[in-house]
Amino acid sequence: MEHRTITFGHRPRIIATSTIAGPKECRGIIGRYVEIALSDDMYGESTFEKAECKMLTTVIDGAIQNAGLGRADVDLIVSGDLLNQIISASFAAREFSVPFLGVYGACSTMAEALAVSAAFIDGGYCKRVIAATGSHFASAERQYRYPLELGTTRPPQSQWTVTGAGSALISDKGDGIAIASATLGRVVDFGITDVNNMGAAMAPAAADTILAHFRETGEDPDSYDLIVTGDLGALGSRILKDLTWEKGLDISRKHVDCGEIIYNVIEDEFQGGSGAGCSAVVLNSYLWSKMMGGSFRKILFVATGALLSPVSSGQGESIPCIAHAVTLIR
Amino acid sequence: MEHRTITFGHRPRIIATSTIAGPKECRGIIGRYVEIALSDDMYGESTFEKAECKMLTTVIDGAIQNAGLGRADVDLIVSGDLLNQIISASFAAREFSVPFLGVYGACSTMAEALAVSAAFIDGGYCKRVIAATGSHFASAERQYRYPLELGTTRPPQSQWTVTGAGSALISDKGDGIAIASATLGRVVDFGITDVNNMGAAMAPAAADTILAHFRETGEDPDSYDLIVTGDLGALGSRILKDLTWEKGLDISRKHVDCGEIIYNVIEDEFQGGSGAGCSAVVLNSYLWSKMMGGSFRKILFVATGALLSPVSSGQGESIPCIAHAVTLIR
Repeated sequence: MEHRTITFGHRPRIIATSTIAGPKECRGIIGRYVEIALSDDMYGESTFEKAECKMLTTVIDGAIQNAGLGRADVDLIVSGDLLNQIISASFAAREFSVPFLGVYGACSTMAEALAVSAAFIDGGYCKRVIAATGSHFASAERQYRYPLELGTTRPPQSQWTVTGAGSALISDKGDGIAIASATLGRVVDFGITDVNNMGAAMAPAAADTILAHFRETGEDPDSYDLIVTGDLGALGSRILKDLTWEKGLDISRKHVDCGEIIYNVIEDEFQGGSGAGCSAVVLNSYLWSKMMGGSFRKILFVATGALLSPVSSGQGESIPCIAHAVTLIR
Repeated sequence: MEHRTITFGHRPRIIATSTIAGPKECRGIIGRYVEIALSDDMYGESTFEKAECKMLTTVIDGAIQNAGLGRADVDLIVSGDLLNQIISASFAAREFSVPFLGVYGACSTMAEALAVSAAFIDGGYCKRVIAATGSHFASAERQYRYPLELGTTRPPQSQWTVTGAGSALISDKGDGIAIASATLGRVVDFGITDVNNMGAAMAPAAADTILAHFRETGEDPDSYDLIVTGDLGALGSRILKDLTWEKGLDISRKHVDCGEIIYNVIEDEFQGGSGAGCSAVVLNSYLWSKMMGGSFRKILFVATGALLSPVSSGQGESIPCIAHAVTLIR
């Protein structure tokens, strides 16, 4: 029997968050909720990669400060990002004299980090853990597709990597949002090879994890206020709703995708936002605020990741994807 | 107060392992212990990256079979590797219909994966977890330094990335080697910028974690049969012994480095072996065999990782490093 859903009996909780986002991102729905709105996405640094790293450092410190704590109060940082060898997370962790677990789940990293953090607290190994991730449009384009300087045309199925970072401070006690369970994803590959069509590649992974969650817990989508996917975008979201509907699960009344809602005006973003920072920023700003304010009580947060690299794409491989889900309860 | 050492009260244990290594590696000490000795490091594949991925798939399946189990008996795979966006681990996980947590700790990945796996079992979330990693000389050279085709001269402080992979199947019960505790590493950077001198970069991280382990547990190096570092090589090992000795901890009688011992004859390997596969292969073949046979009872396994990328090196950054330690008891 499958048992991909693990339950956290002691209900570790997110007691503080922190977020930062670029100017394009802040023109959208998260603009009013993000803690730091950048006017320049270089963030005072000389390279995109250093700006991405600085965003992560900022939100890790931000969540610690928002909880009224100091760096020495944190037992562990669980973080990762989209770049080669997760340098943003590793270099950010260098600033903190705190144990560090590097994780990689591409754009699913926020959910993976939350699940690992919750397990380390619920198991009694740590008291306070930071889960954080982020992404930067320019560093991601250079990493996965083409340097911006080439001026490559973006196809209509593409998404726009979010410039932003988000962190959550998870504690064994305190007021906040409980992480009640996690449904861990497995790697799913439907044979998509188009690196500009992440939504279509990731939707089957999201469907796989969401179906497992409801099958294993026996719950109903109606018991959730929202089922939030990370960055499927408009096209990927439609595919997800079709795939789950075909299996007899109607999530359409509850489903929202961070990538679909993050940008207000669609110019070059086409299908919407993507990147590890997309769901990290939406969760830790807008959703955090709405949950703490009482608008939403229970959310299934399903971040999806495309586990490709320029090397695998260059060698003709298709795009394996994964989705991890965590149940958040106010 | 620091508390980087976490204790696993239920003592999750490694009940089976599996290893594979290339021809150069099998001429050394591990040759008699490795499960599969490759005669060709392409392993029947068309690219080095695909060979690396196939090695990982092989050892994951190998450990499952050696435990007398099937793929469906495994609850979780925790894996990572050195390549861009850990494609070897992600693509290997694609073969298994099993939840997957991607981790990245460079050459510290085996210890990180063991610690995370032990926490997920000890916390009661999983019953059987695979921890696995590997590396390939040719894919790592291309990834971190120069393509082999360039014929770049290797400097005398360099190490040779091990072609090999190792996996451990950790279970909540059964006969094997207990994972008693883990001392999680923090990111340490002593300002080394030479990407060919990993041993010197990683030694301070190893010292930091080893010193924390003995300070926090109150134990003495003499209570261990071995203190095994991952891949410091000859130079890095000497630096580690100096750094710990300066702090009043003499590990010299117990210390062994997987990178220092893995190659018998030193030709172009200079300081010895490195890569995530180095400690993974030595631990899961030679050390596993010696512990199960009763030669060693208690080992501190300290895998070290250099958290650089070609991008960070190219942008003039120094090399942040990390070391995670796990206590293994037969």
